[in-house]
Amino acid sequence: MILLTRKAEFSSAHFYWNPAWSEEENVRVFGKCANRQGHGHNYTLEVTVAGEIDPVSGFVVDLKQLKDILEREVVSVYDHRHLNFEVPEFEHVIPTTENMAVAIWRRLEGKIAHAKLHRVRVYEMPDLFADFYGEGA
Amino acid sequence: MILLTRKAEFSSAHFYWNPAWSEEENVRVFGKCANRQGHGHNYTLEVTVAGEIDPVSGFVVDLKQLKDILEREVVSVYDHRHLNFEVPEFEHVIPTTENMAVAIWRRLEGKIAHAKLHRVRVYEMPDLFADFYGEGA
Amino acid sequence: MILLTRKAEFSSAHFYWNPAWSEEENVRVFGKCANRQGHGHNYTLEVTVAGEIDPVSGFVVDLKQLKDILEREVVSVYDHRHLNFEVPEFEHVIPTTENMAVAIWRRLEGKIAHAKLHRVRVYEMPDLFADFYGEGA
Amino acid sequence: MILLTRKAEFSSAHFYWNPAWSEEENVRVFGKCANRQGHGHNYTLEVTVAGEIDPVSGFVVDLKQLKDILEREVVSVYDHRHLNFEVPEFEHVIPTTENMAVAIWRRLEGKIAHAKLHRVRVYEMPDLFADFYGEGA
Amino acid sequence: MILLTRKAEFSSAHFYWNPAWSEEENVRVFGKCANRQGHGHNYTLEVTVAGEIDPVSGFVVDLKQLKDILEREVVSVYDHRHLNFEVPEFEHVIPTTENMAVAIWRRLEGKIAHAKLHRVRVYEMPDLFADFYGEGA
Amino acid sequence: MILLTRKAEFSSAHFYWNPAWSEEENVRVFGKCANRQGHGHNYTLEVTVAGEIDPVSGFVVDLKQLKDILEREVVSVYDHRHLNFEVPEFEHVIPTTENMAVAIWRRLEGKIAHAKLHRVRVYEMPDLFADFYGEGA
Repeated sequence: MILLTRKAEFSSAHFYWNPAWSEEENVRVFGKCANRQGHGHNYTLEVTVAGEIDPVSGFVVDLKQLKDILEREVVSVYDHRHLNFEVPEFEHVIPTTENMAVAIWRRLEGKIAHAKLHRVRVYEMPDLFADFYGEGA
Repeated sequence: MILLTRKAEFSSAHFYWNPAWSEEENVRVFGKCANRQGHGHNYTLEVTVAGEIDPVSGFVVDLKQLKDILEREVVSVYDHRHLNFEVPEFEHVIPTTENMAVAIWRRLEGKIAHAKLHRVRVYEMPDLFADFYGEGA
Repeated sequence: MILLTRKAEFSSAHFYWNPAWSEEENVRVFGKCANRQGHGHNYTLEVTVAGEIDPVSGFVVDLKQLKDILEREVVSVYDHRHLNFEVPEFEHVIPTTENMAVAIWRRLEGKIAHAKLHRVRVYEMPDLFADFYGEGA
Repeated sequence: MILLTRKAEFSSAHFYWNPAWSEEENVRVFGKCANRQGHGHNYTLEVTVAGEIDPVSGFVVDLKQLKDILEREVVSVYDHRHLNFEVPEFEHVIPTTENMAVAIWRRLEGKIAHAKLHRVRVYEMPDLFADFYGEGA
Repeated sequence: MILLTRKAEFSSAHFYWNPAWSEEENVRVFGKCANRQGHGHNYTLEVTVAGEIDPVSGFVVDLKQLKDILEREVVSVYDHRHLNFEVPEFEHVIPTTENMAVAIWRRLEGKIAHAKLHRVRVYEMPDLFADFYGEGA
Repeated sequence: MILLTRKAEFSSAHFYWNPAWSEEENVRVFGKCANRQGHGHNYTLEVTVAGEIDPVSGFVVDLKQLKDILEREVVSVYDHRHLNFEVPEFEHVIPTTENMAVAIWRRLEGKIAHAKLHRVRVYEMPDLFADFYGEGA
């Protein structure tokens, strides 16, 4: 078994806000991230798939297909978008790095032929990232 | 004469929109950046100052003061903000990388003791940046 | 379960020396690192915690608390210090990258609320790093 | 147990071609990589070893020996070479990132004293890499 | 006046060889680069243009046009190619980093509307790059 | 004319201290850098030379010679050393980034055949660097 990882990037706006809390509570927990005008990031996504190397092609997964899936399922939906207002999974879920890793996993699961989705990593900044290995992990 | 450069980072939301144009014209020129829900970036700012090395301290400029000036004049104003809605210089000016470099120059000019502001560089993404050397350059 | 990783940086001096060995033996094993005047590095620390996402905040761990713990337990003790002379755990233990990863694990273990310490990674240089997953791993 | 990772770099030419396929099939699967004039990359290799810290040296593995092994077994064979024409393991195997990770594992296995080879990671580009943990993993 | 810089990447094979020299002389001057099977790199190109900010768009140069020009004039010609065999300007000129910077300048000069080509920078590796500012500079 | 830049790295210890000042004054100006036990950094040096491309070799400067000069004149003197105690130019000069750029310029000036030393850049950290263009610049 071998793991193959491909990166992709997207630039989005977001903010953190729990509507069940007062403004004071939101600011206490989320600090500057609670500003509802929004701010934004250059996100880096790393998607890792696991499988056997196809002896005919030398590939675990067709690289062009993998790139197309990341583009269609994630980048075209998140890039140059406001996550809170324009991406359905964040209508009632706060777009933290952790929640984004889970949401991207759900978008990709079952879409990659001949290999198993192994890990989704999301960098919000170079010094902060979340890893998700699937629901049962 | 020696040049000293210090980096700082901020994360902001923005979009590109010229209110004198139709929606079609804005999308034609600005593409995905015309989405008025906004998107965002991790910006990197590089500020370069020029001067003589003080023989007593070995510094061109007091590093702590320089860091404080960048924090006070730029980072505290831009970071975790929506540039179009919350930063006054972008009320009627589109926050392109080029305009941001000029705006940051104007915020910093005359504020740095014992050294001359030499260059402001703003990275919107690792593969796109603007340099401004001042009005007369 | 999800993993969240945060980086921190510190700049320290150190050298490698086993007092039970002759100077020749120290130089044979440690090369240039045996120079007892010391040399130094910009270290990068990556701390990974594991836990469930709190459905109310969207966080595995409060990011500000995590940052404060790294600052208080590690950065304030190691940064701008000579590891051999000023950090107690290296009085009788050589501050190799491996030993630093273990020492930082012990400094952080049990300090992070609502999540489990999963991995400590220490980069001495961009091309050399050690990972520690805890005593029983 | 602790893990230690060291990076090395090499610059090589390669192309992807399955001689059992027609030119059309090769181009359909491999795209631009099927150009038999070759193209090339700056590869980054990360080798991770696992072991106990030697209490006398503070090392899992002698760093100089590890560097020498990587140089002798991999870098001197792959660097500034055309992988398809000059490296024996790719005479009948396509030098994809996945196959390179396996080939490097086989070159290193059993060569590192006092520690176990744990993972071989090969970056073809900063946004594409393969990980191999050994035959039985 | 403001400068705007955009990066692009391409992966190519090349080697260094002066046909007027003996094999020994080629190896003496070019070392491992003289291997005529070729080797390769992930090149990074930085193109800087200079101009005035258009007050209507906030741009020095239309970013999409600039990206298209780099793609059409350079990347589509160099990427996944063997520079010595497939790129006409290197039929009789050695594809060193210096000669590549000059060749890319000539490919781009006069092609960029509303702004002046200011600098072409080519990285062969992260630790080696050449800058060209034009024939008269 | 073309510019060629090569990077090199060294890891050194240092501290900032002006013996004409009280301890309080040193701490006030230099902060944590005044700790006389020392701390350290992974420095990155970028040396830029300017010249004409030799039409026979395609080089501005022989790359192997340039690498050897940087190694002999700078890296072998600074790497794994304590700058304050082991490098003669810092016996009475504080090893700030600015002073290091000037000192390295003086070490390299006149040593590079067929090209002119153009710029010395020293990074103390990724977010702080100094540039020196020579005494008369």
